[in-house]
Amino acid sequence: MRQLATAEIIAVGSELLTPHRTDTNSLYLTAQLNELGIDVRTKCVVGDNLADLVGMFKLALTRADVVLLTGGLGPTADDVTRDGIAAALNLHLHESAEIVGAIQARFASRGLQMPDINRRQAHVPEGARVLPNANGTAPGLWIDAGEQVVVLLPGPPRELQPIFETHVRPGLASRTGSRQLRRRILKITGRPESGVEQIAQPLYGPMADWPVPVETTILAAPGQIELHLSARGDDAAKIDRVLDEAVTRLASALGDIVFSADGRSLPEVVGQLLLEQGARVAVAESCTGGLVLGRLTDVPGSSSWVIGGVTAYSNDVKIHQLGVAAAMIAEFGAVSEPVARAMADGVRERLAADVSVSVTGIAGPAGGTVEKPVGTVVIATSGPRSLLRTFRFPGDRAMVRTQATQAALDMLRRTLIGA
Amino acid sequence: MRQLATAEIIAVGSELLTPHRTDTNSLYLTAQLNELGIDVRTKCVVGDNLADLVGMFKLALTRADVVLLTGGLGPTADDVTRDGIAAALNLHLHESAEIVGAIQARFASRGLQMPDINRRQAHVPEGARVLPNANGTAPGLWIDAGEQVVVLLPGPPRELQPIFETHVRPGLASRTGSRQLRRRILKITGRPESGVEQIAQPLYGPMADWPVPVETTILAAPGQIELHLSARGDDAAKIDRVLDEAVTRLASALGDIVFSADGRSLPEVVGQLLLEQGARVAVAESCTGGLVLGRLTDVPGSSSWVIGGVTAYSNDVKIHQLGVAAAMIAEFGAVSEPVARAMADGVRERLAADVSVSVTGIAGPAGGTVEKPVGTVVIATSGPRSLLRTFRFPGDRAMVRTQATQAALDMLRRTLIGA
Repeated sequence: MRQLATAEIIAVGSELLTPHRTDTNSLYLTAQLNELGIDVRTKCVVGDNLADLVGMFKLALTRADVVLLTGGLGPTADDVTRDGIAAALNLHLHESAEIVGAIQARFASRGLQMPDINRRQAHVPEGARVLPNANGTAPGLWIDAGEQVVVLLPGPPRELQPIFETHVRPGLASRTGSRQLRRRILKITGRPESGVEQIAQPLYGPMADWPVPVETTILAAPGQIELHLSARGDDAAKIDRVLDEAVTRLASALGDIVFSADGRSLPEVVGQLLLEQGARVAVAESCTGGLVLGRLTDVPGSSSWVIGGVTAYSNDVKIHQLGVAAAMIAEFGAVSEPVARAMADGVRERLAADVSVSVTGIAGPAGGTVEKPVGTVVIATSGPRSLLRTFRFPGDRAMVRTQATQAALDMLRRTLIGA
Repeated sequence: MRQLATAEIIAVGSELLTPHRTDTNSLYLTAQLNELGIDVRTKCVVGDNLADLVGMFKLALTRADVVLLTGGLGPTADDVTRDGIAAALNLHLHESAEIVGAIQARFASRGLQMPDINRRQAHVPEGARVLPNANGTAPGLWIDAGEQVVVLLPGPPRELQPIFETHVRPGLASRTGSRQLRRRILKITGRPESGVEQIAQPLYGPMADWPVPVETTILAAPGQIELHLSARGDDAAKIDRVLDEAVTRLASALGDIVFSADGRSLPEVVGQLLLEQGARVAVAESCTGGLVLGRLTDVPGSSSWVIGGVTAYSNDVKIHQLGVAAAMIAEFGAVSEPVARAMADGVRERLAADVSVSVTGIAGPAGGTVEKPVGTVVIATSGPRSLLRTFRFPGDRAMVRTQATQAALDMLRRTLIGA
């Protein structure tokens, strides 16, 4: 049997050809395929157009061992993937009673009747293996086309990902031999990309020439820099040792600006610290309007270490709910170090928390002054240890809010680790 | 001369085939092309591989009026776009003395000598028009391939965009006539995709056969469905009238589940209503942990209609900061209609708001019971008019939170419009 070494990904959907939407499934699939030692050779987006889909699919089949198609499996006439692939491979479609039953049950569990239109989702090309979808009506399909593999997956990530992990990955893994690609990610905050690069490049540069070469990519987002390290080979334990060595060298050079080397997000790291210390947190927010607490409570299980918070968008709320003195706001302004300090202390005391963080700032577009331009943000923490810092973040409203949220979480982390 | 109506975009570069990078140039180019009335038919990413590039390019040429290629114009052997396109079109490359001069001058301005390798960037297919690059060494290239147009652009957005605007856009505009594509987006919440489809399809189906055809795409995200309508033609006023008619018919059939027909997001719609009514809002959140207020304060200018809120993750905060009776929580549970009602009333009163919304629920993964499974969310509004409703949302923690946030904003909207 041919070993599976290359893949092409085709995303189907006219909405992915508009200026405001992007195909993110291919990023997830690429990571998964690379882990199996399968390289992605091309990726494409086609609209809800049978001829374009078939043309692209046939081209992919001339080259790739695996062709993955995502989307276009819905119930409407727009959804052309099943028909297109069956036509291109000369396979008849039949209706699967089993799938019809599963879709009917799905509707019934919500007290609804299956519309007749959903029967299209039960059409299966002859010889295809049905990949059950626990989170939606459209099942995935696995088709062996000679020695090549064609996989159809539904577009929504929460449907696609479990199907891939449960059904597709094992099927591919059994045919990829032992070649593997493994990765590590170092997550960093509180330093711009150029600053990280200056420290990291002299270290990771030579790693590309190690006997097992380590490749490094640097990725920058507002408030977060990531170093992605990867290495490949047949011996997983050996690759892991090499990557561990690379991570150790970089992490020790970068110091406490590295918050995670194991994939955890900043809120997860903060939550873990709170859990370990048996501490509970409260948050007082102004310009971030709830986003700091929103990100903390994204973490499953956060109810054991989050008490809650107050979003004090108006000064009245700062005064009455957080106990900030009106005279202090009048003297220093709502965006000031004394007010941030009073907000952090106030929310900790009133909500009976062990530790707290406050954020007050000017996210824009309006509200800036010469002294306190848009992007000025003051953050305070309160607890066994208290920090206070004024930032000036670049960018528009959304970017300022994202960076302020990230900085607040990082100051919370530093308060907890004593850094 | 053939009018230019369709385009395909090919991005060249192996780095765009990794799990953490995405091609953003195509979004910019799509917006630009759509404004000119040119549809993007497919878009692709190929690696630094001559054969893959040529295969994809030849396929695109079988269909599209315009083929745009981005990237792969650097000086190294990896950069295959010039060679690939010249080979596919059977055009000889010659070295342009003028471009060599420009590149040399660029290096000289930084006190450097041009490395010999950069001469490759001066290779021009016969008959091609050179598009000067003010921000980098690789010029763009415009090639007339019969009646079709092929454009090569450098990958970095700050080089690509000025070249497109200065040289490519005018060249394309002169051949698109007055043909234009215009769009409308209907945004809907509170009904699943199939429910929207059932009402909308019988209406939009026939619109595809109108004298000026209206194309419709349906897009579903957790808590939000969008109908994208587009029409094209020479007479902008006429297209607008047709689209207005389509929007009116669909909006009146769908009723008050349509919250926006002009591109505005749900928080923007809520903000506009609050502004018009001179009302200010407060929010009490439990399972959404700050996300409702986070989305409201995303809107620039929200400080005129947001007072603030309390995130009451723990029962203590519900009791002490929102005035919910401890006995009520003990009797009905924190996720119950009486508690949601008390939270909404409490936050409105304590923060002196005109209107308020509360959310309490079980986002999971833990905390569900037989009676109140994960996904159970109770939402209340309080104000001149008060609503109260229990939802059962499908999906994981993130999906439940997203849907609960959207439902809370929608109930706020309904409270304000009296629907």
